[in-house]
Amino acid sequence: MTPTITAFESSPDRGRGLARDMRVRWAFEEVGQRYDVRLVSFAQMKQPAHLAVHPFGQIPTYEEGGLALFESGAIVLHIAERHPGLLPEDPDARSRAIGWMFAAVNTVEPPIVERSMAGVLERDEPWYEARLPMLDERIRARLGQLSDRLGDSDWLDGAFSAADIMMVTVLRRLDGSGLLEAHPSLPAYIARGEARPAYQRAFADQLAVFARAQAAG
Amino acid sequence: MTPTITAFESSPDRGRGLARDMRVRWAFEEVGQRYDVRLVSFAQMKQPAHLAVHPFGQIPTYEEGGLALFESGAIVLHIAERHPGLLPEDPDARSRAIGWMFAAVNTVEPPIVERSMAGVLERDEPWYEARLPMLDERIRARLGQLSDRLGDSDWLDGAFSAADIMMVTVLRRLDGSGLLEAHPSLPAYIARGEARPAYQRAFADQLAVFARAQAAG
Repeated sequence: MTPTITAFESSPDRGRGLARDMRVRWAFEEVGQRYDVRLVSFAQMKQPAHLAVHPFGQIPTYEEGGLALFESGAIVLHIAERHPGLLPEDPDARSRAIGWMFAAVNTVEPPIVERSMAGVLERDEPWYEARLPMLDERIRARLGQLSDRLGDSDWLDGAFSAADIMMVTVLRRLDGSGLLEAHPSLPAYIARGEARPAYQRAFADQLAVFARAQAAG
Repeated sequence: MTPTITAFESSPDRGRGLARDMRVRWAFEEVGQRYDVRLVSFAQMKQPAHLAVHPFGQIPTYEEGGLALFESGAIVLHIAERHPGLLPEDPDARSRAIGWMFAAVNTVEPPIVERSMAGVLERDEPWYEARLPMLDERIRARLGQLSDRLGDSDWLDGAFSAADIMMVTVLRRLDGSGLLEAHPSLPAYIARGEARPAYQRAFADQLAVFARAQAAG
């Protein structure tokens, strides 16, 4: 059975691949699993039919037969557990890779999302400019620690894994912020991810959704 | 081999069980696995020996033989995968439980941490009072969605699982905020978790650490 995921009908990132369906698309492409995409509007995301699959009204979701999942990290892990190639076979290395998946969404991503949200929701507030250096500093601290650990390794822990899918897509959200450049190993790490054929196929597919929405709109 | 975790030498929560080692202690108690605890000071957490285990300089960590893990969600999942009782045996139900573990740390916890951090880092800033209703509203939205999904179920998805360990401990961080009370199913859910003997043993053990630190200090 072909799984179906959800993605934005018209992504606010204008096709830059920053929405969380990109992680899932990339994982599917790495393992060679076909998938269908159901596009949802912002209005649909808050309606009962979508909330039945995603209680918090977001994308992506994953449906296959009777199984419905939400949370991009959980979906990527689900794909990685059912296909070879995205998790190490050694049990300890596998646990470490899953640890990095949690680190990506729980330790690295939150201050990045916080900065993005402030830019959308608080840009006109009198405190926005005063708070921005504090938000940047929280991200810089995480990037410094991540860069220290990555060193001159190609990937987070040995071979490329689902952890790198999560971390590269989290870091890409800083594109244009100017924060990555202080740690040259991080843009190089992102570039290694983006150079993978599976990434490029996934990116093209999500960009095509946006291009069609633009043409229709 | 007995695993060793790390916890705060002197927890800033004053023994209320809000630090992230509580999740791991609770999981160990549920499955009946003995464990050792190594206490670390805030200064030690930023030193190379600790950063070698936790690149972001936090607690908890998990060490067993040659394996070192960090991220509370990943550690609880590791324990749940190696002992019966914390994850459903049905593969679909297991994937859903892991999905809820990600939701706890990636969707529910970030706005809660954000509010706590503002209370510590920005309490004296001129914008603190003006921003607080916005921070509260973000949490309220999540709590409403979580409460809608939980309904009158005892646990998130069928039987008690590692997902409930994560979600209950995340929600407990709102203790004293007044935000939980609008959704009576949530305090009741937390209370069901706290009533479990394994929770109580874990809570007593982390409280004893704080009590000893107080007596010594």
